[in-house]
Amino acid sequence: MAPVAPVLPVAAHEPPYYAVVFTSVRTEEAERDGGYGSTAERLGELVQEIPGFLGEDSAHTPGGLAVTVAYFRDLAGIEAWRQHAAHREAKEHGQAHWYERYALHIAKVEHSHGFQRARG
Amino acid sequence: MAPVAPVLPVAAHEPPYYAVVFTSVRTEEAERDGGYGSTAERLGELVQEIPGFLGEDSAHTPGGLAVTVAYFRDLAGIEAWRQHAAHREAKEHGQAHWYERYALHIAKVEHSHGFQRARG
Repeated sequence: MAPVAPVLPVAAHEPPYYAVVFTSVRTEEAERDGGYGSTAERLGELVQEIPGFLGEDSAHTPGGLAVTVAYFRDLAGIEAWRQHAAHREAKEHGQAHWYERYALHIAKVEHSHGFQRARG
Repeated sequence: MAPVAPVLPVAAHEPPYYAVVFTSVRTEEAERDGGYGSTAERLGELVQEIPGFLGEDSAHTPGGLAVTVAYFRDLAGIEAWRQHAAHREAKEHGQAHWYERYALHIAKVEHSHGFQRARG
């Protein structure tokens, strides 16, 4: 089962922190699930154990692009997640089965702010 | 009409460049369109005229989160876009009608890479 999208975007944090932008086009196998959903859900739990992980935002246009942004306090957290055994295994499986293509951008946040609608 | 999601994610660029991450939860009015789609399409054309604009990736989980990442070569381009009259007008209208909440993160990309499936 695909993970349910969170209702709230991750709030702005006090800079500096890092945003890891992962954009992808999934294969038909992943769009049909093919184990994608359960792995994504499991990784979504594991990443929360990484020191300095601040949260993540994810969206997927059905049949189109998927964009996930994970926020970390520092590069050490990003590196710890990159080397995490379950993450590495999923990456290998993903390259073989789930992704037509993807791009990864690791970026240091210099400014952020949020907006929330006033309640009537 | 809502803009069609691009088939390809924006490729990795040579750093440094900037990623502007915009995450939002739309109102029911925007989910029903309410002018959202045509404005988004028009802004998607206008931003391409901004010097240093490199491209953008956008995804929207129906009824859930929307994540758009726009890439610029430098902060001057981001500032030019922020001050663009049509963009400012859309932002005002968006705060009044289209967004329950959003967060904006402006981040300098330090590293990026891409993956593309080999053709059989």
